[in-house]
Amino acid sequence: MTYTYETDGAEIYRQSFAMIRAEADLARFSPSEESIVVRMIHAAGLVGLERDVKLSPGFADAARAALKDGAPVLCDVRMVSEGVTRARLPADNQVICTLQDPRVRELAAEMGNTRSAAALELWRPHLDGAVVAIGNAPTALFHLLNMLEDPACPRPAAIIGCPVGFVGARESKDALWADQPVPCCIVEGRLGGSAITVAAVNAIASTQE
Amino acid sequence: MTYTYETDGAEIYRQSFAMIRAEADLARFSPSEESIVVRMIHAAGLVGLERDVKLSPGFADAARAALKDGAPVLCDVRMVSEGVTRARLPADNQVICTLQDPRVRELAAEMGNTRSAAALELWRPHLDGAVVAIGNAPTALFHLLNMLEDPACPRPAAIIGCPVGFVGARESKDALWADQPVPCCIVEGRLGGSAITVAAVNAIASTQE
Repeated sequence: MTYTYETDGAEIYRQSFAMIRAEADLARFSPSEESIVVRMIHAAGLVGLERDVKLSPGFADAARAALKDGAPVLCDVRMVSEGVTRARLPADNQVICTLQDPRVRELAAEMGNTRSAAALELWRPHLDGAVVAIGNAPTALFHLLNMLEDPACPRPAAIIGCPVGFVGARESKDALWADQPVPCCIVEGRLGGSAITVAAVNAIASTQE
Repeated sequence: MTYTYETDGAEIYRQSFAMIRAEADLARFSPSEESIVVRMIHAAGLVGLERDVKLSPGFADAARAALKDGAPVLCDVRMVSEGVTRARLPADNQVICTLQDPRVRELAAEMGNTRSAAALELWRPHLDGAVVAIGNAPTALFHLLNMLEDPACPRPAAIIGCPVGFVGARESKDALWADQPVPCCIVEGRLGGSAITVAAVNAIASTQE
């Protein structure tokens, strides 16, 4: 049979966000935070995710201000960097992923760490005031926390720390939440991933729904 | 504090997959299917996803054979195409996403449909025998089903249909499962997305874990 379906992208977004606001328990979030959490739920297709989302006080404002000031978005994987909607970015911000840089493989071998973690060493020139978006690798988030142990390491403006999975994901996010070196956002537990992370970046980039 | 954590990527995979096999109920899948479902659970960080995964008989074999024969992978969004691990592909297969093609915007306006759906019109020269991977847009999956209504439209070898979300996602996947124009794989309901879709492609591409 030939299918008929909603073909208006704006209307699909409107209906989706209305369903999420009707079903999810968003009472504990400020309006500025709520728009971020709604978009994260949308990307996951999962009402209930809001129970696992934690935003530190000032995270939403710090991340939004950084992007308005032209901060780059530093992403652990290309599934994150490719998902950021460039037209939503307020200052034609750079979106950077260093994972495919040819230096990373050797760096990882030297460090005895994953390529995902090694790639962050190449963030250093961009890290000051940046918005960090980690959506895949727990080792990247752990390595970032260790880098920030050094007071000489430049500070990002905000960290979206949402690696996904079974080994190290929960632990790395708990570590970020315990340390809070800068304002941050996590999804507790195993859930997370590139789509949820991208959604947070896209929500911060513009208040337009 | 300075964190210590598992830094060996292969060991992280091994532990993760062992946890999934210990926790998930995979009894209804054949060994060939099980390796696909395990990787989908891994990408989602969600044991229980297996309850929503449906693979048509022959899907795993058809998709694997197509890739071995050099079939391209056709992806609805760049978050899918960028996630496919090129080194796992058995025949240096092309990975194609037409969403950013400059013709798509005008095509979408002419069709009165989303850009995601319009982009599939540019798949036609590649569609014969391809592996389709739809991980984001319900409108893309609906449009593909409508394209395949035409007996003159080339047939892909297999369809991974895992769009995510609140409007049309469930409906488009139910439609694929009802039609089964070719062997297919879906995640029922709202869950799905680019990471789960990529995981299915990467599992089909190679049996190496």
